[in-house]
Amino acid sequence: MRIKVVNPNTTAAMTTAIHRAALSVAAKGTEVEAATPSMGPASIESHYDEALSVPGVLDEIAKGELSGVDGYVLACFGDPGLDAARELAAGPVVGIAEAAMRTATYLGRTFTVVTTLPRTRGRAWDLAERYGVTRFCAGVHAVDIPVLDLDPDTLPRLTEACREALAADKADAVVLGCAGMADLCADLTKTVGAPVIDGVRAATLQVQSLVTMALTTNHGDEYAKPPPKAYTGLLHGFSRA
Amino acid sequence: MRIKVVNPNTTAAMTTAIHRAALSVAAKGTEVEAATPSMGPASIESHYDEALSVPGVLDEIAKGELSGVDGYVLACFGDPGLDAARELAAGPVVGIAEAAMRTATYLGRTFTVVTTLPRTRGRAWDLAERYGVTRFCAGVHAVDIPVLDLDPDTLPRLTEACREALAADKADAVVLGCAGMADLCADLTKTVGAPVIDGVRAATLQVQSLVTMALTTNHGDEYAKPPPKAYTGLLHGFSRA
Amino acid sequence: MRIKVVNPNTTAAMTTAIHRAALSVAAKGTEVEAATPSMGPASIESHYDEALSVPGVLDEIAKGELSGVDGYVLACFGDPGLDAARELAAGPVVGIAEAAMRTATYLGRTFTVVTTLPRTRGRAWDLAERYGVTRFCAGVHAVDIPVLDLDPDTLPRLTEACREALAADKADAVVLGCAGMADLCADLTKTVGAPVIDGVRAATLQVQSLVTMALTTNHGDEYAKPPPKAYTGLLHGFSRA
Amino acid sequence: MRIKVVNPNTTAAMTTAIHRAALSVAAKGTEVEAATPSMGPASIESHYDEALSVPGVLDEIAKGELSGVDGYVLACFGDPGLDAARELAAGPVVGIAEAAMRTATYLGRTFTVVTTLPRTRGRAWDLAERYGVTRFCAGVHAVDIPVLDLDPDTLPRLTEACREALAADKADAVVLGCAGMADLCADLTKTVGAPVIDGVRAATLQVQSLVTMALTTNHGDEYAKPPPKAYTGLLHGFSRA
Amino acid sequence: MRIKVVNPNTTAAMTTAIHRAALSVAAKGTEVEAATPSMGPASIESHYDEALSVPGVLDEIAKGELSGVDGYVLACFGDPGLDAARELAAGPVVGIAEAAMRTATYLGRTFTVVTTLPRTRGRAWDLAERYGVTRFCAGVHAVDIPVLDLDPDTLPRLTEACREALAADKADAVVLGCAGMADLCADLTKTVGAPVIDGVRAATLQVQSLVTMALTTNHGDEYAKPPPKAYTGLLHGFSRA
Amino acid sequence: MRIKVVNPNTTAAMTTAIHRAALSVAAKGTEVEAATPSMGPASIESHYDEALSVPGVLDEIAKGELSGVDGYVLACFGDPGLDAARELAAGPVVGIAEAAMRTATYLGRTFTVVTTLPRTRGRAWDLAERYGVTRFCAGVHAVDIPVLDLDPDTLPRLTEACREALAADKADAVVLGCAGMADLCADLTKTVGAPVIDGVRAATLQVQSLVTMALTTNHGDEYAKPPPKAYTGLLHGFSRA
Repeated sequence: MRIKVVNPNTTAAMTTAIHRAALSVAAKGTEVEAATPSMGPASIESHYDEALSVPGVLDEIAKGELSGVDGYVLACFGDPGLDAARELAAGPVVGIAEAAMRTATYLGRTFTVVTTLPRTRGRAWDLAERYGVTRFCAGVHAVDIPVLDLDPDTLPRLTEACREALAADKADAVVLGCAGMADLCADLTKTVGAPVIDGVRAATLQVQSLVTMALTTNHGDEYAKPPPKAYTGLLHGFSRA
Repeated sequence: MRIKVVNPNTTAAMTTAIHRAALSVAAKGTEVEAATPSMGPASIESHYDEALSVPGVLDEIAKGELSGVDGYVLACFGDPGLDAARELAAGPVVGIAEAAMRTATYLGRTFTVVTTLPRTRGRAWDLAERYGVTRFCAGVHAVDIPVLDLDPDTLPRLTEACREALAADKADAVVLGCAGMADLCADLTKTVGAPVIDGVRAATLQVQSLVTMALTTNHGDEYAKPPPKAYTGLLHGFSRA
Repeated sequence: MRIKVVNPNTTAAMTTAIHRAALSVAAKGTEVEAATPSMGPASIESHYDEALSVPGVLDEIAKGELSGVDGYVLACFGDPGLDAARELAAGPVVGIAEAAMRTATYLGRTFTVVTTLPRTRGRAWDLAERYGVTRFCAGVHAVDIPVLDLDPDTLPRLTEACREALAADKADAVVLGCAGMADLCADLTKTVGAPVIDGVRAATLQVQSLVTMALTTNHGDEYAKPPPKAYTGLLHGFSRA
Repeated sequence: MRIKVVNPNTTAAMTTAIHRAALSVAAKGTEVEAATPSMGPASIESHYDEALSVPGVLDEIAKGELSGVDGYVLACFGDPGLDAARELAAGPVVGIAEAAMRTATYLGRTFTVVTTLPRTRGRAWDLAERYGVTRFCAGVHAVDIPVLDLDPDTLPRLTEACREALAADKADAVVLGCAGMADLCADLTKTVGAPVIDGVRAATLQVQSLVTMALTTNHGDEYAKPPPKAYTGLLHGFSRA
Repeated sequence: MRIKVVNPNTTAAMTTAIHRAALSVAAKGTEVEAATPSMGPASIESHYDEALSVPGVLDEIAKGELSGVDGYVLACFGDPGLDAARELAAGPVVGIAEAAMRTATYLGRTFTVVTTLPRTRGRAWDLAERYGVTRFCAGVHAVDIPVLDLDPDTLPRLTEACREALAADKADAVVLGCAGMADLCADLTKTVGAPVIDGVRAATLQVQSLVTMALTTNHGDEYAKPPPKAYTGLLHGFSRA
Repeated sequence: MRIKVVNPNTTAAMTTAIHRAALSVAAKGTEVEAATPSMGPASIESHYDEALSVPGVLDEIAKGELSGVDGYVLACFGDPGLDAARELAAGPVVGIAEAAMRTATYLGRTFTVVTTLPRTRGRAWDLAERYGVTRFCAGVHAVDIPVLDLDPDTLPRLTEACREALAADKADAVVLGCAGMADLCADLTKTVGAPVIDGVRAATLQVQSLVTMALTTNHGDEYAKPPPKAYTGLLHGFSRA
């Protein structure tokens, strides 16, 4: 089984960290590869960044299809391009926000999300609504650290933010609201005192489970392959599967 | 007042028809311009098409900002790039799906949507949910005509589809689920026997109303200008305001 | 185009202020008239007041129908008699609460309502639910000033209330919860630092837009003309269209 | 204990039938009186009728307060003036729609409503939503008989409508959607083969239960007595408690 | 009419208090009996306790059926075994949480629940959702007193908890979240200054009302008698009706 | 890693089939054991059966805790005793309904459930609501075959039922509504032409994923160990962890 983890931003160091997280949970016999798109923003911190990350993400899906990938993880907490990716890919595609949020529902009554910049909280709420977990999502909080500044030095601030979020929301678990926090998940679990969920790991395991069950997107209607047509300009050379 | 209507696909003939619809309702003193992006799909009939239309849409918003546009209409029923466009534009941005659906709520208890291809119905439901009109939306139906095939010859089939949708859903109004139907709205109103709503007109008037009241997106938090950062590859040369 | 703005209470000075607000946004060529009913409460500050305002409102609608009005605004934030008015009027009828709340949804993720007396907050929540904007409505706050005491002297207290509401709810816009605040909207916009929405203006423009698009209530079923029958006592002499 | 059942329309024969239904379930020691308002429509079959019934209803509440009534039933399925009545009355006020719908939730998973004219179905749905029973309400159906034409001769058609509604909705119980059906409830129970709920009986018992528990509306905030003020014209002479 | 009130825990003193509460509201001619199951936990303070109380509850229902009981009250705020009991009993079965919460909806806009241990709050929210009263339930608060420690000495702490809950939630009524509070309801009503609802009384009256109207569970589908089959081990000797 | 799959009914042959399904997807290194409780109903086809299965399920959880099990699957589509089991078990507990329904959300817009007896459909809807997937659940259908009659001979009828459900609901996937269908899942996948989800497999993989991520129920509040207390009668000898 081959799983491809797509980092929707163009920062290779973050791809490496995401890859590490995915590998740490994959079963023996599951190959995990990680990709940095050739186009897109260095980090995703606005609706604009997210929108502009999608062509790069889809390009990686298209390449994966050519190379026989069995399933995909979209490793940004906005789950950018999820619906379009499902149309392109024969195998399952799972976003880290959906996997993390749904995983959290198994651990207690509610969860709280701790994300990076305050402006991204709205997107988390939109996804909670889309995934049917609004009732489980007790709050979305921002630590106010830019995505690319997340590193071991920020552990104390993140710990504090997770604790405050749990207390404010009386929540049972913390969902990390950024793939850039994947490297810190193990440490946070120790310092926070409640389940801490990294979406990269959750989504990797979800894809692995779906492939194990031979389950994938129903391509019969809404998620059929996109109808062929002319694409102009900017998208020249885009490799469609 | 200057309103820019952005056609998210790259088919100029459709831009012309959309422009005509917008002009038909704008007040004296309101200038309406219409734009075809330099990149994107020829028509939007899948999540994939919609995703790939967004960079072109945002480019048009960015150009509009440089030229002093007061407000924008996104003239595709998927409202592609709406959140990102609101970050970029100083003035208001209105999608035709949101304007059409909200307009319909003033006309009775429920509306029904008649769109092009069956695979796009899911997106309409997603938007209804996002805009808070799920309770008002009694159904979403597809006439099964590709976007670029909509023309006066399809009027009988569209009429039939609208009537069937109204009867099946016991709805009070029809929302046209594609900007490509704008030219047919007046005729459909006559043949269908119930209010028929074209989102291009509704959104143009909504932008005009917002500008008249000097109301625009709150740019203080979620919809602040995107933080500056590096954009790689595909997006090189993209003109940001 | 003729729009009639009905002030559901019997205080003529308030009708004048409401008229001024409506005129300030109407397009050239749109005639706006305002009416004070001949029966009803001096102000509307309870469910009881609102209930007793409805016959006077409907009487004004009935008169408007006799005189060829194209559309109506109900200028009280409780939208009293909206459904009944839609049955009576050939043209569209828009309440200021529904227009203000829906307008606010174009400006950001959430809005907050600032109203007069605390006891009226429940009605605002009921209307938010009815109009499908509960998710957008982050709070309803009362400045605790009776309707007829609203005047330029109350601007500082209203400003303070709007700022507190925005901060408490982390909202993107303020919806003014009383037609009696229409005169203060421009000043509040300057002092509050976020979009401030006056329902009288929003509803006037909404009616104007609907009439421009030749859209009106579907009178085929629920909103058909009321069936003729005997009305006894109190309602003797009531002028039905 | 004294319970006053207010018939919101002005047809005395219907008041008599409603009175009979209420008396048939009241406990020993519970006095039940029934009133026909001195003003209002002969029957309630539109939003307009309902709006115009409210002043008469409130007048009866006001009179009841002067005479020491302990609790009130509003005996029209639109529950007209319920909020206002709760402000006026010291004791509890219960509408027949809310009592019938909530009673039905004890009897199975879902209920279906059978009402008179098709145009009144929307109001039933609005009330279901308001009372939190939308999930329990599987459908609202109209037998298409005007309110004042309901009599023993319509039993076969009503039976048929109830059976069809139960089958179409796979519902567990029928809620009768008009006080004018109260007299037929016992017969319908026999012919329909599923629980049939008459709101007049349900509401009378609910008021009796509330008074027995010494429970009434909280008059501390939203449902405080209406603030005193001038009422003009039409309402002159209206007797307020 | 015979009503059987089942105390789901095995503490006879609590059964006595519950019986007293039920008797205090029953009409003349209504016989009320109360039962302590022969198996189960001494009190119910966890999902585990609640699960283990159900066989004892069902045994009491089965015994009641053999002896001709007309309706049942389940006198624990978790409404344990409600669905199963409705399958077994010919007459209506009402839980005290559902009766209390629905009763509260007649008294104002919202209610607040005051319960015993913090860990039981989740169950109260689940039931509010099930019964369709989530919108009416403004909060669930715990006084942090174990069920069997509730006695007149705890009145001051309960009073304080009720007042704090009303203030925190701006609620109109208090729902007592434990049958063990039934004895204190009258005193709390005096000290709290807002309607206080005891579910034992509310449910007893609700059963009485249903029996008066000859209404009971529809046994035609979901709530038909359980299909006969082998039950092993633990349940040997369990008396089925 | 040791996973224990608990069959809530007492039919050993069904436990064997469930075990086989779980083993077919578990990773190398994951030990899967399956247990038949010593008490309970032979099959679960009513609320009553489900209620009476819970003590046996909890007994198996308690035994598992004594023997060092890492996580549990509850292998009945009613997820009986899930909350209580989460209190008892140190490791995660997953029901097959929740796992199957959530798995289905990754495969398209909607799923449909095909279950055994019509009377169990209500429970499926309750669980869909609880798990936040009501919007994704397009329908629940019954094949009208008792649980213990499911065998390879019923494949044609099940295939037909799945196809009809998919067509009626325009759904993207089928969720099998009974653990007794686990053995038929592979064949149904071939005959039905859309993704078919067996909850036993889905839940086994979900538990495996949670254990891999070292995630388990938060035992700090609602799901803390049940407080120790006396249990009477029926439950004597029940082995608590």
